[in-house]
Amino acid sequence: MADPFGAVPHLTFDADRAARIGLEEVVLAESKPLPLLAGLLEAAQREGRRLLCTRLTEAQHAGLPETVRAAMDYCMISRTGWLGAPAAVEGGADVVVVTAGTSDAGPATEAVRVLRWSGVEGELVADVGVAGLWRLLRWAERLQAADVVIVCAGMDAALPSVVAGLVGGVVIAVPTSAGYGVAAGGRTALNAALASCAPGVVVVNIDNGYGAACAALRVTARLRRQHGVPR
Amino acid sequence: MADPFGAVPHLTFDADRAARIGLEEVVLAESKPLPLLAGLLEAAQREGRRLLCTRLTEAQHAGLPETVRAAMDYCMISRTGWLGAPAAVEGGADVVVVTAGTSDAGPATEAVRVLRWSGVEGELVADVGVAGLWRLLRWAERLQAADVVIVCAGMDAALPSVVAGLVGGVVIAVPTSAGYGVAAGGRTALNAALASCAPGVVVVNIDNGYGAACAALRVTARLRRQHGVPR
Amino acid sequence: MADPFGAVPHLTFDADRAARIGLEEVVLAESKPLPLLAGLLEAAQREGRRLLCTRLTEAQHAGLPETVRAAMDYCMISRTGWLGAPAAVEGGADVVVVTAGTSDAGPATEAVRVLRWSGVEGELVADVGVAGLWRLLRWAERLQAADVVIVCAGMDAALPSVVAGLVGGVVIAVPTSAGYGVAAGGRTALNAALASCAPGVVVVNIDNGYGAACAALRVTARLRRQHGVPR
Amino acid sequence: MADPFGAVPHLTFDADRAARIGLEEVVLAESKPLPLLAGLLEAAQREGRRLLCTRLTEAQHAGLPETVRAAMDYCMISRTGWLGAPAAVEGGADVVVVTAGTSDAGPATEAVRVLRWSGVEGELVADVGVAGLWRLLRWAERLQAADVVIVCAGMDAALPSVVAGLVGGVVIAVPTSAGYGVAAGGRTALNAALASCAPGVVVVNIDNGYGAACAALRVTARLRRQHGVPR
Amino acid sequence: MADPFGAVPHLTFDADRAARIGLEEVVLAESKPLPLLAGLLEAAQREGRRLLCTRLTEAQHAGLPETVRAAMDYCMISRTGWLGAPAAVEGGADVVVVTAGTSDAGPATEAVRVLRWSGVEGELVADVGVAGLWRLLRWAERLQAADVVIVCAGMDAALPSVVAGLVGGVVIAVPTSAGYGVAAGGRTALNAALASCAPGVVVVNIDNGYGAACAALRVTARLRRQHGVPR
Amino acid sequence: MADPFGAVPHLTFDADRAARIGLEEVVLAESKPLPLLAGLLEAAQREGRRLLCTRLTEAQHAGLPETVRAAMDYCMISRTGWLGAPAAVEGGADVVVVTAGTSDAGPATEAVRVLRWSGVEGELVADVGVAGLWRLLRWAERLQAADVVIVCAGMDAALPSVVAGLVGGVVIAVPTSAGYGVAAGGRTALNAALASCAPGVVVVNIDNGYGAACAALRVTARLRRQHGVPR
Amino acid sequence: MADPFGAVPHLTFDADRAARIGLEEVVLAESKPLPLLAGLLEAAQREGRRLLCTRLTEAQHAGLPETVRAAMDYCMISRTGWLGAPAAVEGGADVVVVTAGTSDAGPATEAVRVLRWSGVEGELVADVGVAGLWRLLRWAERLQAADVVIVCAGMDAALPSVVAGLVGGVVIAVPTSAGYGVAAGGRTALNAALASCAPGVVVVNIDNGYGAACAALRVTARLRRQHGVPR
Amino acid sequence: MADPFGAVPHLTFDADRAARIGLEEVVLAESKPLPLLAGLLEAAQREGRRLLCTRLTEAQHAGLPETVRAAMDYCMISRTGWLGAPAAVEGGADVVVVTAGTSDAGPATEAVRVLRWSGVEGELVADVGVAGLWRLLRWAERLQAADVVIVCAGMDAALPSVVAGLVGGVVIAVPTSAGYGVAAGGRTALNAALASCAPGVVVVNIDNGYGAACAALRVTARLRRQHGVPR
Repeated sequence: MADPFGAVPHLTFDADRAARIGLEEVVLAESKPLPLLAGLLEAAQREGRRLLCTRLTEAQHAGLPETVRAAMDYCMISRTGWLGAPAAVEGGADVVVVTAGTSDAGPATEAVRVLRWSGVEGELVADVGVAGLWRLLRWAERLQAADVVIVCAGMDAALPSVVAGLVGGVVIAVPTSAGYGVAAGGRTALNAALASCAPGVVVVNIDNGYGAACAALRVTARLRRQHGVPR
Repeated sequence: MADPFGAVPHLTFDADRAARIGLEEVVLAESKPLPLLAGLLEAAQREGRRLLCTRLTEAQHAGLPETVRAAMDYCMISRTGWLGAPAAVEGGADVVVVTAGTSDAGPATEAVRVLRWSGVEGELVADVGVAGLWRLLRWAERLQAADVVIVCAGMDAALPSVVAGLVGGVVIAVPTSAGYGVAAGGRTALNAALASCAPGVVVVNIDNGYGAACAALRVTARLRRQHGVPR
Repeated sequence: MADPFGAVPHLTFDADRAARIGLEEVVLAESKPLPLLAGLLEAAQREGRRLLCTRLTEAQHAGLPETVRAAMDYCMISRTGWLGAPAAVEGGADVVVVTAGTSDAGPATEAVRVLRWSGVEGELVADVGVAGLWRLLRWAERLQAADVVIVCAGMDAALPSVVAGLVGGVVIAVPTSAGYGVAAGGRTALNAALASCAPGVVVVNIDNGYGAACAALRVTARLRRQHGVPR
Repeated sequence: MADPFGAVPHLTFDADRAARIGLEEVVLAESKPLPLLAGLLEAAQREGRRLLCTRLTEAQHAGLPETVRAAMDYCMISRTGWLGAPAAVEGGADVVVVTAGTSDAGPATEAVRVLRWSGVEGELVADVGVAGLWRLLRWAERLQAADVVIVCAGMDAALPSVVAGLVGGVVIAVPTSAGYGVAAGGRTALNAALASCAPGVVVVNIDNGYGAACAALRVTARLRRQHGVPR
Repeated sequence: MADPFGAVPHLTFDADRAARIGLEEVVLAESKPLPLLAGLLEAAQREGRRLLCTRLTEAQHAGLPETVRAAMDYCMISRTGWLGAPAAVEGGADVVVVTAGTSDAGPATEAVRVLRWSGVEGELVADVGVAGLWRLLRWAERLQAADVVIVCAGMDAALPSVVAGLVGGVVIAVPTSAGYGVAAGGRTALNAALASCAPGVVVVNIDNGYGAACAALRVTARLRRQHGVPR
Repeated sequence: MADPFGAVPHLTFDADRAARIGLEEVVLAESKPLPLLAGLLEAAQREGRRLLCTRLTEAQHAGLPETVRAAMDYCMISRTGWLGAPAAVEGGADVVVVTAGTSDAGPATEAVRVLRWSGVEGELVADVGVAGLWRLLRWAERLQAADVVIVCAGMDAALPSVVAGLVGGVVIAVPTSAGYGVAAGGRTALNAALASCAPGVVVVNIDNGYGAACAALRVTARLRRQHGVPR
Repeated sequence: MADPFGAVPHLTFDADRAARIGLEEVVLAESKPLPLLAGLLEAAQREGRRLLCTRLTEAQHAGLPETVRAAMDYCMISRTGWLGAPAAVEGGADVVVVTAGTSDAGPATEAVRVLRWSGVEGELVADVGVAGLWRLLRWAERLQAADVVIVCAGMDAALPSVVAGLVGGVVIAVPTSAGYGVAAGGRTALNAALASCAPGVVVVNIDNGYGAACAALRVTARLRRQHGVPR
Repeated sequence: MADPFGAVPHLTFDADRAARIGLEEVVLAESKPLPLLAGLLEAAQREGRRLLCTRLTEAQHAGLPETVRAAMDYCMISRTGWLGAPAAVEGGADVVVVTAGTSDAGPATEAVRVLRWSGVEGELVADVGVAGLWRLLRWAERLQAADVVIVCAGMDAALPSVVAGLVGGVVIAVPTSAGYGVAAGGRTALNAALASCAPGVVVVNIDNGYGAACAALRVTARLRRQHGVPR
């Protein structure tokens, strides 16, 4: 029997997404079979289209065709890779990405890389968890200036609440899967962020640095429009 | 033995919160003993301070002193009540609140009322769930114009994903506790919103119209600053 | 001590199942020890009996006797394999299998292959998730014509609700384990499908393309009987 | 401040649903505030429209305007009520509703009433749980003749598996919230039905007799079309 | 048939518990039938034994015999009541009880009352949650002096982590059931406290101010022994 | 529309259950509508049949017809009631029912009453939880003599493990819903009993004293048969 | 620093367990470090003590010293291994082990092997799940004769309820981890067995064939004592 | 694009933690990428700083630079490693670490090693679970003398309750992930410890021997201060 996926295309690209909502379609690689993934990327390379992959595991990356791998800018910490050039950086919006600890580096770097791909230069403030408050407090003024603060934290995820009590900008919590026992998997961090005692914290899925960056881009697009910058 | 709460104040108001982050402290009434709640409100009334209460149950409202009840603007659907006048409405930001069904009216109205209290006139688009897509699609242009869309949906919470695929503004999902069986309590709606297939949806706690409004206010404050409007 | 399974047969085949309910017994391979599985298949091959295996992992497939593997039609995407010929395709019933994204290809292909094994030619409509509604809407007329639509979707599983609001045929949701964080494992997709805001969606276990196909076959058998076609 | 729901309609009826998918919109009453519910029903009565309410609690029913209550056909066991006449009963399809025990009477009656409202006369087979197999087996022939069997069972929900092993028609499981301890709420019955060892069982939400009936109506509509009966 | 509890005593008091471990047996009232509870307390009153009840609901308290109620020191906030005199207050140990918000008053007062009953004068520091950090920081020196700090917090329970990063004494977290949505019930607060990013936080059951006080008494007993004070 | 339950009997009694498995059918009252329950009991009374009800709430009991209530032996602690005489007590088997605390009295009394109804005189050993081990140890010899020990315990349910380490008879754990926070509902007690470190503990549903008694009766029936006593 | 486990023995054998409760201590291998496990078994071999290991993985078995492996009777299906001779088989008790499907073979074989080690010859009845009822019904008479029936079933675990409705002996359910989606891990099977609609089913932990055998041995020991056979 | 972590340091050491709260910062290795971890340790070695790592897997340890590995004191059972010398042992406090079984050796050894690193010589009492009570009871006097007893137990975690009923010192429960089925992962042990029927048990995260040791050090620091020993 022929593979039923042979007759119709596997994929129906949402090609007009950028025009419609200002965010391009990206490839969530993790769950895709390698041959399909390779085919996708070879086609993009052949046609000169730029393309961003998230959650591209090291094993997947290692299995890609040599020509694709040679052309790809791949980052192991964030497991993101892109073909083609990132968008030119535009001003008019200020995004900071904060981590509670070194174990949150993966999602934080994913957020920074997605922002950069989309023309926003996010600043990273690392390892300022609440167990040593002075680490965070010395950054207070910087964070208060930001339009958007993305806060990556696992375990008890106390950091988003403390940050949201200090700043007036948009605060996006990225609960991470760092930790063990009741923390591992990130459900505790997720629930703590959702139940935050500070007003107006918004939350994305566990380890979803990509989603946080997209939400930040929705904010910065509006801010730029206020400046008269076309989106 | 004296009540230990008699010796020190029960409450430590975060009076400079508005100056610090642009959002006033409000009273989450639900879990507070009635005498304490009544005391709080009488003091505010006496001192001429404006004050917003959320999750103020009908039973609590009925038990308040007559003078407080007479002065309070109370809304049964949202269970919010305020003493004093809402802030003057300012322009410069456009927020729409959408519901999937009539059962989502409580959190949606809470969001509209908190926005209004804070000087933002949010528009309500009601009962446009995805089981009859035409209901949503006729609002598409309106929603695309908004800076922030707050989407209140229970059960399977499919609406935030569909909206976020249509508009470029900030999309804040408020999962609601509407439904029964696996839906009741709102965990399914919450998880569906967090796992949205559309990029950049952010999420708040179940039924948390207040939190969604605060997040929207964080966005609108930044947009106004862009206009040169002081926060 | 002798293996207690040596004295009595390991298996008690439900040989009259097809006569009784119109569905043959198939082998769920995943949890079976390899020697047992190999024995089963060798016996079927020796006796010329046709046999379908589901959830047959690549590792298991690789470990089967060479003669079995040579005779088997194995599909890696769906992890299904069969010995012998599929049933002849009969008309009189129209089944479409829809996926929200490429990550749902496994269960969707399983459904298509089980249908084919049983004499029904299901049509596949791939990657039409709700984040880009136009992809689904251009298939609306086709789906409205179908007797049964099997909808495979992970993450927030918004697609079954949207489809069930568009068509009058039987809608069977297959929640899939695609996604990560709160989505991974498929519980969120499952619960969203069960809590669907659209009327009459029925649901099977996570990734259970086989079960969805069997349910579709229960429908098509009745439709054929209406035509005077003996089941 | 004016109630924001005052300015725009609370409801956006999906009036063309019956034309589109063959199933009318019904009112899920449980979570609706009484004044709104009363308004809805008075309007329908005034305009002579027929309307079905599900999950209409006794307290809600008692609070409706006298004229509405006088006109309504209300059933306490199923908590359903309708205004106007049910559809005329048509032949061409055979649906049986089975219960495992008396505690499952609520959802089973809901299914029977929704079928009847829609012109299908479902037959009820009550209290035939597997702890006394003879009770079920004496109905075997009857069940084998049915096009659709709706099986309502709580606790361990063993009944859908046994029925699906006996009959070739469509088997729809309605897990119920009957039971206590690990059973109460119906999650165990739901999961057991989803994990059924019998092929092709489909499942709806806990206590969702309405949904099971809608799914059955999707099947019967297709069967009638085969007969040349217009839907 | 005679009540089987009539023949043997319902209760087997652990009368030597105080001698064995330094903590008396107390009565957890909540789940006890009223007649039994009344009997217990009348017996204690008659025999002149001192006795502490925890989780004694207002309804239970209202149903007690008049003579018992007249003699009992009952506190509605903590739902604790005692017959007889608390132990004389001894020095040699410093315990502070902190709350994140007013909604944590119940468990906090329970802890203070159990400490007082046992001869320890705990100090209460109320409503110093992390959304307004200055509230906590002005108490930093006081908390650093304490031997034991009991921290009562619901919702995201960020406070125990922040406190444990500031002080060297024993930090006991009491997660509370304050909050709604994912917070309600206290599981999120509990898990956040267990997954604390600060070292050496210990945790008790949700709302268990009694248990936290007992743990503090285990510490203070050891500290007093160091002073040569007999336990 | 006529109530569909009017046409066919609501109930299909499993009248030959006692002959088949040695245990009569009993009525689980909790989830049955009052009119139905009353009808059932009146019929039994009229026909002189003996009948046992479990989980018969005080509210249900209060609502029964006066003649039924007058004839019924009802026990509030266990919420059991019977019409007619219990079976004559036979020897040949020794069952002891143990509780960890007074809060476990309900399920324990249910077990004792079901045993008595069935002709077995169970002995009750109350309030011997492990926090004061001496209470249990003084009963060690008595428990070692028993054929079956039913152990009712909530909270951490440590008692079944300790008992099963002391005795050679059959140990049946009844986890109870006593406790609060992580204990309430009985899931912790249930899981602890299932994960017991002592060999051969068997477990029934939460608060299921009835089920434990039935299991004990299955054992005692076999023991009596060994004596030549007909079951 | 010296390994703290070097100074005191790792193990405190419960050597008098057999004398106390009639069941020997066995070694749960799975979670033990290999060197320790090897040491244990070498010591037993050296001293000529018989010893049973459960949950001894193939990897652990492969890593044992050659002399131990040569002497051990190891069974891959059940992952059990023993050194020395099983107890002589005694009569006076009849135990049957039933499986719903081939995937339940592991726990079923564990039960049979533990029984055999302890002198009881259990009979195995394999693959008689309820999807094809005739498979079970032809064994009905045999099962009715048994003193104890151990029923191993995964997925929806409908089999224990059906068996317990057919036989009067002791029915012990072993929920197994067979299945996928909502079934995987065995929680659904566990909960279904606990919520059984048939009276007197007792349950052990998931996949715990060892525990079921121990419980059966507690029954058979009592039955033998009735015969005058010393335990 | 440059790695965003290249511009700012990955880590913000909380260098004054020991001065502030008496506990040094340690490295939780498990979730850190190897190059980063190696860099950290090489820097510490170069600068002559002492440093403790917890949850350092064997794979991570094997991948460290040879010079680091040669200098490190690594313990496989506890997965802890340190560079530099432990603190000198001081008297004035008595800590005992107890295990229920050999499977709890990992967390118990972690606790002992962290105590030793910090200058406290903890004593280990191994394998004294409640299934054989005599094993614990012979240690009763020793445990009663201790200031702090750390109790490591998995499965049903009955041991902390029994210990806390015997001793007056501080009792810290470490629930462990030992066991399978409902036990595996340690949630059952955790919940059982939190719901303990004995007063004043405090609990840390699953397998968190490090946290228990830190809590014990908070107690011993206070006890030493009582002696006039500066912390």
